[in-house]
Amino acid sequence: MQTRQALIDYTLHLADNALILGHRNSEWTGHGPILEQDIALSNIALDLIGQARLFYQYAALLINKTPAADPTSPLNHGTAVTEDSLAYLRDAWDFKNCLLCEQTNGDWGKTVLRQFYFSAYQFYLYGEMQKGKDATLAAIAEKALKEVTYHLRWSSEWVIRLGDGTAESHARMEKAVGELSRLTAELFLPAQYERSLAEAGLAVDLLPLRSRWEQRVREVFEMATLSGGAGMLTGGKEGRHTEHLGYLLAEMQFLQRAYPGCEW
Amino acid sequence: MQTRQALIDYTLHLADNALILGHRNSEWTGHGPILEQDIALSNIALDLIGQARLFYQYAALLINKTPAADPTSPLNHGTAVTEDSLAYLRDAWDFKNCLLCEQTNGDWGKTVLRQFYFSAYQFYLYGEMQKGKDATLAAIAEKALKEVTYHLRWSSEWVIRLGDGTAESHARMEKAVGELSRLTAELFLPAQYERSLAEAGLAVDLLPLRSRWEQRVREVFEMATLSGGAGMLTGGKEGRHTEHLGYLLAEMQFLQRAYPGCEW
Repeated sequence: MQTRQALIDYTLHLADNALILGHRNSEWTGHGPILEQDIALSNIALDLIGQARLFYQYAALLINKTPAADPTSPLNHGTAVTEDSLAYLRDAWDFKNCLLCEQTNGDWGKTVLRQFYFSAYQFYLYGEMQKGKDATLAAIAEKALKEVTYHLRWSSEWVIRLGDGTAESHARMEKAVGELSRLTAELFLPAQYERSLAEAGLAVDLLPLRSRWEQRVREVFEMATLSGGAGMLTGGKEGRHTEHLGYLLAEMQFLQRAYPGCEW
Repeated sequence: MQTRQALIDYTLHLADNALILGHRNSEWTGHGPILEQDIALSNIALDLIGQARLFYQYAALLINKTPAADPTSPLNHGTAVTEDSLAYLRDAWDFKNCLLCEQTNGDWGKTVLRQFYFSAYQFYLYGEMQKGKDATLAAIAEKALKEVTYHLRWSSEWVIRLGDGTAESHARMEKAVGELSRLTAELFLPAQYERSLAEAGLAVDLLPLRSRWEQRVREVFEMATLSGGAGMLTGGKEGRHTEHLGYLLAEMQFLQRAYPGCEW
């Protein structure tokens, strides 16, 4: 894949993530559980849409220097691409946001869990991106990281408050975990454009972020007394196993352990 | 990571996958629902344990040429490592099998679904591995692929038969999907030893296998009338979205679509 096209796709992916989640959050404006939290979530929405603008502006710059391969693309109709045309004139199949970002708000618990999952992801992602080789992406990441640090704190506190709250709020959080956790694998599975750029140091290498993200989720879930049981399970390849393996080995290895070196 | 150590870890990972799943399947011997299927699954167990032997023999060869870094390792106690010592004298934290392989058998439906998920994975994995640069791994993969092709056909037929069977068998298959699908992400998330070897062409690059595996699972689940709803969901990064995004865009983009080029 051509590097410039990959960089355009990657920048759009980053922008779409922020725009779509920001838009979802903005749907809460005027409907939050209390005024202060209504304002807090609306501000998070604005932060995300602000990040999206910066990424779209950069994508537009790259696209205007590189005509789209498809001459019938509406993005190519004579006029230059802008942040607005990227946000408002592309159809669903052109959007590259992770599925997590587009999920419906559900109740307040689902919304804060979605935010927590994604803010924790952005926190580690931007932390690496600000060290990347693309100066524009690095600068956006550095600016956005300050905002994301707050989003992560805010959403962590809510996950803990509701998870470790009443029986009702705990049950709702467990339900939200069941609904959203199967969407988190996508965050760490690189698309083709991410892979080709990561090799050149232009995109963040996602795979190493996963264990840091999982560690953070585990810590918060522990404080929130959430099982996290519905999430994807990994670790076997590195020797971290479920309780089942020990029993299996106990049976399978018994003879050799009891009679070392025995042969038929 | 040193290439030889990575190759040892990778070979043990392949061996452990086959041994642990083979052992699980062997637990059915004498307990299968009908004699013919009892024998079929026992044969699959034998195939897998046979694959494990070949991988362990290769791993032992590599290890005996390279003393373990940890001098206290029981593998290093004077005597040479063998396929048997690798299978019978390592503890759980040394096993590198995917968590999917070690899951308990549950009912027949869970067992055949576990086999289907894993055989589909092995089918694409070995298909690539036989083209790899390590001649020994390529030879084992080529031999094993014939067996795995049969395992995949057998398990696919069972998934379809039970999924598209009675209300009871369908419900049990849906339950099995709920239990096992969150373990499938690990198959495609490379461990460090897989990553470093893949770059050198010595291990299979896992990420491109995923969409082929998903396609196969989708096809079989469709014939089995299974929802597959509990699996990990991905595709957004490449523009394949859930139904939610279209509604979101319809609202978010309405103004620009209705009044093209409008400004505040």
